[in-house]
Order: sequence, then C-alpha cells, then structure tokens
Amino acid sequence: MAETPGIPKGTRDFSPEILEKRNYIFDIIKSVFKKYGYKQLETPALENLSTLTGKYGDEGDKLLFKIINSGDFLKNVTDSQLIQRNIPVNLISEKGLRYDLTVPFARYVVQHQNDITFPFKRFQIQPVWRADRPQKGRYREFYQCDADIIGSRSLINEFEIVQMIDEVFSELNLSVTIKINNRKLLAGIAERMGYPEKLTDITVAIDKLDKIGYENVFAELKQSGIDEQSLKLLEPILNLNGRFEDQLQCLEKFIGETESGLIGIVEIEKLFSYLKRAQFKNKIELDLTLARGLNYYTGAIFEVVSDEFKIGSICGGGRYDDLTGIFGLKNVSGVGISFGADRIFDVLDNLNRFPEHSFSNVKLMFVNFGEQEELYCLPVLKLLRENNINSEIYPENDKMKKQMKYADSNKIPFVALAGENEMKEQKFTLKNMKNGEQNLVTVKELLLIMSELK
Amino acid sequence: MAETPGIPKGTRDFSPEILEKRNYIFDIIKSVFKKYGYKQLETPALENLSTLTGKYGDEGDKLLFKIINSGDFLKNVTDSQLIQRNIPVNLISEKGLRYDLTVPFARYVVQHQNDITFPFKRFQIQPVWRADRPQKGRYREFYQCDADIIGSRSLINEFEIVQMIDEVFSELNLSVTIKINNRKLLAGIAERMGYPEKLTDITVAIDKLDKIGYENVFAELKQSGIDEQSLKLLEPILNLNGRFEDQLQCLEKFIGETESGLIGIVEIEKLFSYLKRAQFKNKIELDLTLARGLNYYTGAIFEVVSDEFKIGSICGGGRYDDLTGIFGLKNVSGVGISFGADRIFDVLDNLNRFPEHSFSNVKLMFVNFGEQEELYCLPVLKLLRENNINSEIYPENDKMKKQMKYADSNKIPFVALAGENEMKEQKFTLKNMKNGEQNLVTVKELLLIMSELK
Repeated sequence: MAETPGIPKGTRDFSPEILEKRNYIFDIIKSVFKKYGYKQLETPALENLSTLTGKYGDEGDKLLFKIINSGDFLKNVTDSQLIQRNIPVNLISEKGLRYDLTVPFARYVVQHQNDITFPFKRFQIQPVWRADRPQKGRYREFYQCDADIIGSRSLINEFEIVQMIDEVFSELNLSVTIKINNRKLLAGIAERMGYPEKLTDITVAIDKLDKIGYENVFAELKQSGIDEQSLKLLEPILNLNGRFEDQLQCLEKFIGETESGLIGIVEIEKLFSYLKRAQFKNKIELDLTLARGLNYYTGAIFEVVSDEFKIGSICGGGRYDDLTGIFGLKNVSGVGISFGADRIFDVLDNLNRFPEHSFSNVKLMFVNFGEQEELYCLPVLKLLRENNINSEIYPENDKMKKQMKYADSNKIPFVALAGENEMKEQKFTLKNMKNGEQNLVTVKELLLIMSELK
Repeated sequence: MAETPGIPKGTRDFSPEILEKRNYIFDIIKSVFKKYGYKQLETPALENLSTLTGKYGDEGDKLLFKIINSGDFLKNVTDSQLIQRNIPVNLISEKGLRYDLTVPFARYVVQHQNDITFPFKRFQIQPVWRADRPQKGRYREFYQCDADIIGSRSLINEFEIVQMIDEVFSELNLSVTIKINNRKLLAGIAERMGYPEKLTDITVAIDKLDKIGYENVFAELKQSGIDEQSLKLLEPILNLNGRFEDQLQCLEKFIGETESGLIGIVEIEKLFSYLKRAQFKNKIELDLTLARGLNYYTGAIFEVVSDEFKIGSICGGGRYDDLTGIFGLKNVSGVGISFGADRIFDVLDNLNRFPEHSFSNVKLMFVNFGEQEELYCLPVLKLLRENNINSEIYPENDKMKKQMKYADSNKIPFVALAGENEMKEQKFTLKNMKNGEQNLVTVKELLLIMSELK
C-alpha cells in the first residue's frame, strides 16, 4: 500500500480546474444544440456485445472493452476450448463499453421507434471507450459530443448544422474554416472516371491529399488499378478553388451527366443557396478533396479546421441514409455532427482563449480568525449565498498565510476580513486578491460589490 | 438482425424527457455545491483493479465489473489453471469499473496530494457500476452525487453540509427531515453498556430499529452476547425524543463520563449551536437510533428522509477520519454527503413536483408550408436564436397534422404559421398550443412575447 495509486493508461482525472474549462466548452455546445431544438439523450455505458460487435469493422471489434460475465465466467467454455487456449471472448463476456455514440443512438432509435416522434433531433455528450494504444492526444476514455437529426431528408437540416458549427466556434472565440462536400459528388467523379465501383478507394485516397500530397494520392490510386488517363481527369477537380459559382460550373461540366453527380450538384446548390442568405462569422467552402473516412455517409459531409492552430479536424459529420439499417429499421435518413472536445480544448489552451473566470468560481472567502469572528461572518455569508453569490468561509482558524494560500490557489478574487475593529464598526475589510487593494465596507456595500462582479 | 435490440439488464436509456427531469435535480444540487465553494471533479470510469479490490468487502469485490485484458487475455494463465477451470480473475483482468465515488476520490487525493491545497472541497456527479442482481429501483449503472471536504476537522463543515441539504431540498420543493447523530455518542453508549468492543454489532442492530422494531433489535443484540441488564440501559436512550436540550441533558447523564461519549457530546453541542443560529426550512433532529451501515464514519452522521413520501433515506453522509489511509495517506479527516438521485427522482415524480417547463425546451416552432414560406421564416428564426430563444422550424413541408403532432409531443408551447396572407402583411399567426388561441403578430411582437415567456 506504500506505492502511490494511479489510473489506467489512456484515462484521465479531470481536476476542478481542467473540468471547469472542459465544461465551458460543453456548455457552449449544449446551449447551441438546445437553441436549435436538439434534445439531450443518454444511453448506458454498458451495451450488449451483440449490439456493438460487427459495427466498427474487424479492427474496431478488437478495440472494444469487454466485461467478464459475473459468477462462473467459464461455464459456457468447453474443456477442449480451455485446453487449446481458444476461448472465444463472447463465451465469457456478454457486455461491452460504448465505443461511440452513433451505434447506441441507432440502437435507441430502433428499440424505441414506436415512442419517438420523427424527425428526432437528439444530442448526446458522453464518454466512450476504446482499447487503443494510448499515445499523445489519444485516450482510451474520452468524451464525444454528437448531434443528429434522424427521419428528415430536408437540406434545411444541413444548413442548420452549418449554422450551429458557426455559432459554437464564434461563441468559443475561435476562427475556423467549415469545409463542405457531398458524397454524391465524389460518386459522380468516380463514375465519370470510369470506376464507380472504386468509390471507396478513391475517397480514401483523396482524403489523404492534405497529408501526403498529389503524387502519393495518385500513386495509391494507380496501385488500386486506376489508369493514368482517368487520373488526369481527377487533377483539375482536386484543384478547384475560388468562388462557389465557378466551382459549380466546372463540376457541372465534369460530372453533370452522371446520375450521382447530378443529384449531388442539386443538393450542394440548394445547401449553398440557404447558406448565402444567412451571415456567418467563419469561412465556409466547398472542398472536393474532403472525403472523411467513414463509409456510411451518403450525402453532405462536413469538416472543420482551426484557422489559428494546426491540429487536424476539430468537428465533422455528414448525412447517412442507412444508420438504423444495421438494427433492422430501413430507410431512415439522418444527418449529424460531432465536436472533438479534446482537440477544441487543446486549441483554446494553446491560444490562451479560455475566459479567465467562470461563473462557478467562488467570488469571496471570509478569513477565519476564530470563534467570535466566525459567528460575526456566518450571517453575512448566508446573505451572500441567498443572493446566489458563490462564497465560503475558511473552515479553521489556521495561520493567515495558509488561509491566503487557499484563496489564491482556488482563484478566489476577494477575501473579507473581520477582526475586533471591523466587528466594532459592523464592517468588513475587503481585499482584492489581484491588486492587493483593501477597503473598509459595510455589509450592504459588500453585497453590492459582489453582486456586480462578473 | 430482425430482433429488436435491447440494453443490458439493470441499465437504462435516459430519454430526453426523463433526462430533463434528472438534470433538473442535478442542476439544483450542483448549484448549491458550487455556492458553498465545492469544486467539481471527475475521475475515469476505468480504475485499476488494484485500486478497487479489497475496499468494499468480499461481497463488494464480487460485484465489481471487470474488463477483460486486450489481446491474448490468457497469456498469464497456466495450463494447470486452465484444466482445473480455476482462473483467478485478476490474471485475465487488470481494470474494473468505478463502484462508488468515494474510493476514486481517496485515490485521487493520495495520487495528487502534492498539487492539492487542503482543505479540499470537491463534488462529483458520475455514474457507478455494480454487478448486483437487478430489481425494482436497483440498477447496475446509476449516478451518485457526492460532496466532501477533506483536510479540515472544523465542525463548521458539518454545519454547512446541513445547510446544503436544507437548501437542496427546499429548492426541489420537498419537505424533509434531516437526522443527525454522532458515531462517538454510539461508542459512548457501547462503552457505558460495558461492551465497547461490540460497537459494530450495536450500531448495526440499532440501525434496523425503524424496520424491525425494539423487540427484534434487542433479540439480535442478546444473540450477539449482550446481557439483559445492559440492554435495559439502552432503552431510554433509543426512546429519547423532544427538545435537543433535554436530549443532551439525558445523554450527559448517561454517557458523559465515557471518553468517546464526552467528545461526542461536545461535538454535537457545537454543531447544534451553529444550527440554532441559522434558519432552516426543514426539520432537523438528533436521532440516536441513526447509525448508517458504513463502518468508516467516525463522527457526525447524517440521513435525510422525505416527510411526504415513504422511500427510505434519500441523502446521507458523515465524517470519517481515515478515508485515504487505505492508500497510505494517514490522518486526513473529512466529512461528506451523498444525494440519492434515483430516489429523489421517484419522490418528485410521485408527488408530481417536477416543474412543468424547463428552460431547455423549445419555445416556438415555425410550421413549414414550403420553399417560399421557409425563406420567409428563416431570418425571423435566426433573430429569435440570436436572442437566445430556443426555437426551430419543422424541416419538411409535411402534412399539417404531422407537424402539429411534432410540436405537441415535443411540448413546444407556441407555433408560428406564415402563409400567403401573413407574408403579404409581413406578419405571423402565433398559435398557443395549450389553449388553441391564435393571434396575428408582427415580428417585433413575436420576439417580445417569446422573450417574456418563462
């Protein structure tokens, strides 16, 4: 027991100071979600393994955290399986930890389909667990912040998602670029190139453009069997920049006659017609190189990057046409967005953009000089709290230095002192911890100053 | 895949409606904790099994949810262990799920003792997991809401905890009785009876008084080896009622000469002297039959019951002198409280005390009559949201009935309609969903009405 206890690799304690910053992010995201009519949902951390397995690919299955069955966990295992050291993990485990928020959401929608009024707008901010190799910035337990609307094909939903993204980041005082693309445009490109069946290869390769550059993307595509001539067709498309109208014209020429391409163009045109009528604080651009790894997107795709700090995507999402199909409910279209809380935290931290004081902080601490002084302070403390002013009294008559250290390390901006003189005059000495300024104030003045403190 | 997917027994989905109610409880508890200077902490769901095992007794160890090691989970198991079906679970598992918030808090304090300024006031609201047999009102995944101050022996902390309890329940609009006792008084009683070593037996038996009555308590104590004469001494003590001063006088006579008893009397007298100077909305009483199961309490103990709905204890806590000792940090005294969120939920639900509307709810929905009308509504919707009014537009031009059903089942109090006439006049028809009243209003009026809506 002499060893200092620790926590599992890839997990974190959130100290009050860190948590306050994290909640600052969550609170802004939550309030925007609510403002747009999204409702909060929570699903259990524990899901049946039958719900989770097969949903994230073979690699994902390996990364699921699995719970050992209670009681005699070997009871379903045969002797020969034991001797051969070949125990299928589902024989000793029926439950696993949530791996993302999307599959539990799909499970929830299918399970409760008769109680839900569609369209269903839900948001969810909960931790997920992945048995990944822990490394810098990658955790085994981390929060996801998702919002999805399911059961509506209207492009107004895509428009509002872009508005929410813009609003969240402007409230966070961050400047970002919101990149938009549409899977159907990518499908049109693949079709026009003559390789509609290679859509996945093409999107996966294009997705890496930022990281590995044109030459390597082309090399990869060549390797997957695409001929040189078709690759040449791709080049101008990936280079498309400038005004949306010019991009659109060029796209129409290139893929306007393919089936997917045409629908993609109509969709992106409609979305941008909404966007043009609204005002945004951040840049919005059509980026045909945006592909996003996840294969289930079928329409719009979104990705957000910081203009001020390089860290990769800090928010992403898109439309999917068959999320609930895996649980037997077909033809339910949805569109969603996920904010990367850990990366947003890092951006704010690196740019020093967290607000200095949060509202949860204690504004005033009464110094404790002993029994008589305590009794003098307590009714005033009560009065402050009745006025919703977070405040406290140092609980012991410790040395002044220790009490001040407490106020300091808890970032309490003011302390109130009452000794013999103050008590005689029915006043308090109010000390500003930042500049050291001291003033003798009445209870009424104290209350007023504290109420006006931001 | 045709089967409807479900969730593990003993776990729950929190639908938006339930979650809103649960968050109503959490938000009140949180705001009171913060008002008294408690700071939020979060620890990971995953803890090392070495942190968890041995802390909750043999029974508790069995109820820990354990995670199977990733990769070849049998690698530490010998052939003979396999063949004998005798695999110690810690050979295939190193991590488990948090069983309560107290042990992780103790672990946190010891691990970070050099970074923490004591006294340390933390609160924590997080789920815990127990592989208990699921039954009505008992879950395998549920939230705990704890606040503790550690590193201070001052009784002002006990006083403030009673204040916090009183404030939480009056804000929840519930009438409760706050029962207080002190373990040292119980120790004094055991000493006076001549059985100081039987303190645990005595407290465990007394704790059941409410449920099984005097006779059975006495029978149980007799069985544990306490003689009739000593039991007779106990009777008047357990019957103590009435004014605190009278109770105290009687206690002084009975246990004032025992060592623990004397300290207990001083402590309880001091605590009640604080309490008498403050005002409380709820009843507070000294209850010598209050023992609480947990053995680690060493001073004050608290328990709260509803005056209006019978459901057992809805909040409890006490002082402990050696919480962090299990991790090697001695002599750190603390006192804490835990609110039973599930039971408080049931009390509010049964008494119908949840407020009808929460602030997160959408206040207005624009009905969608098609493309032109959409474009007419969108700027007004934007304006409302800019004024922090949660609002939405129905995303599709569905049948009116379907749109109204959406507004209804999402408890949206107002809908705005704009057809040809409204658009011509630059107005909206505002419909009150509760009474069906309709009014033609300007945008300015709409904004005003929505802003004033509670």
